[in-house]
Amino acid sequence: MRTQVAIIGAGPAGLMLSHLLARDGIMSIVLESRTRQAIEETIRAGVLEQGTVDLLHELKLADRMEQIGERHGGIEFRFRGRGHRIPMRDLTGGKEVMIYAQHEVIKDLVAARVQQGGEIVFGVSDVQLHDLDTDRPRVSFRRSPEAPTEFIACDFIAGCDGFHGPSRRSIPENVRTEYHKTFPMGWLGILVEAPPSSEELIYCNHDRGFALVSTRSPEVQRMYIQVDAQDDIANWPDERIWSELRSRLATEDGWAPIEGPIIQKSIVGMRSFVCSPMQYGRLFLAGDAAHIVPPTGAKGLNLAVSDARVLAAAIGEFYQDSRTDLLARYSQICLRRVWKAERFSNLMTQLLHRFPEHSAFDREIQLAELDYMTSSVHGLSTIAENYVGLPIEWGT
Amino acid sequence: MRTQVAIIGAGPAGLMLSHLLARDGIMSIVLESRTRQAIEETIRAGVLEQGTVDLLHELKLADRMEQIGERHGGIEFRFRGRGHRIPMRDLTGGKEVMIYAQHEVIKDLVAARVQQGGEIVFGVSDVQLHDLDTDRPRVSFRRSPEAPTEFIACDFIAGCDGFHGPSRRSIPENVRTEYHKTFPMGWLGILVEAPPSSEELIYCNHDRGFALVSTRSPEVQRMYIQVDAQDDIANWPDERIWSELRSRLATEDGWAPIEGPIIQKSIVGMRSFVCSPMQYGRLFLAGDAAHIVPPTGAKGLNLAVSDARVLAAAIGEFYQDSRTDLLARYSQICLRRVWKAERFSNLMTQLLHRFPEHSAFDREIQLAELDYMTSSVHGLSTIAENYVGLPIEWGT
Repeated sequence: MRTQVAIIGAGPAGLMLSHLLARDGIMSIVLESRTRQAIEETIRAGVLEQGTVDLLHELKLADRMEQIGERHGGIEFRFRGRGHRIPMRDLTGGKEVMIYAQHEVIKDLVAARVQQGGEIVFGVSDVQLHDLDTDRPRVSFRRSPEAPTEFIACDFIAGCDGFHGPSRRSIPENVRTEYHKTFPMGWLGILVEAPPSSEELIYCNHDRGFALVSTRSPEVQRMYIQVDAQDDIANWPDERIWSELRSRLATEDGWAPIEGPIIQKSIVGMRSFVCSPMQYGRLFLAGDAAHIVPPTGAKGLNLAVSDARVLAAAIGEFYQDSRTDLLARYSQICLRRVWKAERFSNLMTQLLHRFPEHSAFDREIQLAELDYMTSSVHGLSTIAENYVGLPIEWGT
Repeated sequence: MRTQVAIIGAGPAGLMLSHLLARDGIMSIVLESRTRQAIEETIRAGVLEQGTVDLLHELKLADRMEQIGERHGGIEFRFRGRGHRIPMRDLTGGKEVMIYAQHEVIKDLVAARVQQGGEIVFGVSDVQLHDLDTDRPRVSFRRSPEAPTEFIACDFIAGCDGFHGPSRRSIPENVRTEYHKTFPMGWLGILVEAPPSSEELIYCNHDRGFALVSTRSPEVQRMYIQVDAQDDIANWPDERIWSELRSRLATEDGWAPIEGPIIQKSIVGMRSFVCSPMQYGRLFLAGDAAHIVPPTGAKGLNLAVSDARVLAAAIGEFYQDSRTDLLARYSQICLRRVWKAERFSNLMTQLLHRFPEHSAFDREIQLAELDYMTSSVHGLSTIAENYVGLPIEWGT
């Protein structure tokens, strides 16, 4: 097989890249180790930055999102029993976020790509990358564990296969640096059958720990509480979860979440990861293959999409103008935005959670930071502009 | 002796308070354990917020400051070999800082107070506070170690006697909470006979540690480098100091500090401290007696002055309108601003120093924070508005 760009992984980065390349008339093949059903059902993030929303519109992939998703022009920070709205729309000249689950985005991208005749091979195994430091890299794979090995010859490989995929590990260890941070807490997330408790998302810092009130649809809500990273979901019967949500989210004027049947619950860890550079020869990493953020900043999917934008532009320039300027700067352009998103995700995590190692002084500094951030228009604006998404800085 | 307000300590808080009270026709006596010469010669901070400058003008104490001091409309953050100006004047609607040494302020305040016939007793010892929880508190002291004990009967005691003074310790331990943080580094500060190296202050984050280029006058400059908190000044011959300053401050275009004879050098620790509440009965703490900030935010003197402003207003309201509303809220009003200043000083310290405990990830987050702060107008504005000084929030 021969294509121009072999894309490993049908997550947000890989699928978005295949669409952007197709728009420019560039061929690609997407290889995905899981089944179509599996990737369309995995519950992940749910907040799309303005830039992600705009791009879905540009690509005419926004119909279902506009139908099902919800535009939010603000979020709330809640601490010491009081809510403080961050009016993002007003503070950013009209930018908003879209509450639309990642797996819905995946469904839209897959359906459109399949309809256009784009090639996505699901359920592949034994994916390997070859000849990365040549102009003719190759990817080998099997269509099933028993099938024969096939090869794709290509000009570029896009490694969009997540933290555990083979792409990043194909970069020699001596030319990449990996940065890690593990936070000493986890998020217990639930899906609830209930109407929304709040029109906008609530990020709450309470003495008992962080809580987040999010939403999925008029009938299903998403809520989270900070728990110990090592905690077992078996320790959390529904009533204990509700009790924590009520305690943490309580306000002076008696606010309480609307309760309902919990239809899904799980605990996820919180960590940060960056691989630098994001490129080796003809291999370009995008999305979780190159970086992980804790979920507090709602940046994971959006970073994947902006990587795909930069990579598509760089590959487009290569085929159209025979230039490699953007390709050479791919890693630098992406990493600047990635580190700013890591910074924001780290800040939101530091601001909103209880940390076991915090002294009484640290706790007061955290509350002073929340006080400052919500009482200064500039403080509010720093949260707002990061939450709706910083621009990609293309400059040299 | 009898007065309305006994003020313990002739630092910025105590002296400013005595002036503000005198303006309202309220009598005070200031007790100071050191000599006039000693307090007028001690080298301390040198950056006055816009509000401090305005107050000195209001009190007609600004003549020498306007003559000798220098108004600065910006500061520079320097990292990765590049300078990034923070145009504070433009970002805050015209606010600036004044570079004018604390001991010069002290000289001005003492001279004017003495000229007005205000009572400042220098060199006192054995200061003790009595009957704080009554309407008639008293202060006892001796004019010299051998002199007899004298008593001042008063309505209020202002504890402006610094971290080590007797005032705070007169508050029973079970009604106050003390918050501490010690930073794992110190500042080695020098006075140099040389012309200014830079028109504005330079705050530099370098792999080798923090450096600060400040100024005192056209002939004398103040510079600092981060050193180990336990380091001995004997380990720092002049040439080693210059070598570090040159290395840390170097830019891509060859910037170097202007060198000259070092006429003073010392190492100071970096710590934060807050006592809450700042009031007990008729005793009101102000300045370093209640809070310490690391010097990175240039907030120490300015916090002392704003405490004095709030306390003078509260005592003024008491005598003029027989109301205790502001007195009752003194601690709350001051502590909100204090914690925001602690937050800013902590942020500046975290942003600009190397921390032994930082991982490679933490270091990249720090550089991303500097990148964000200096590339977003809102980020720049948060630094600017804090540096020139946040307003006092009087509201309930």
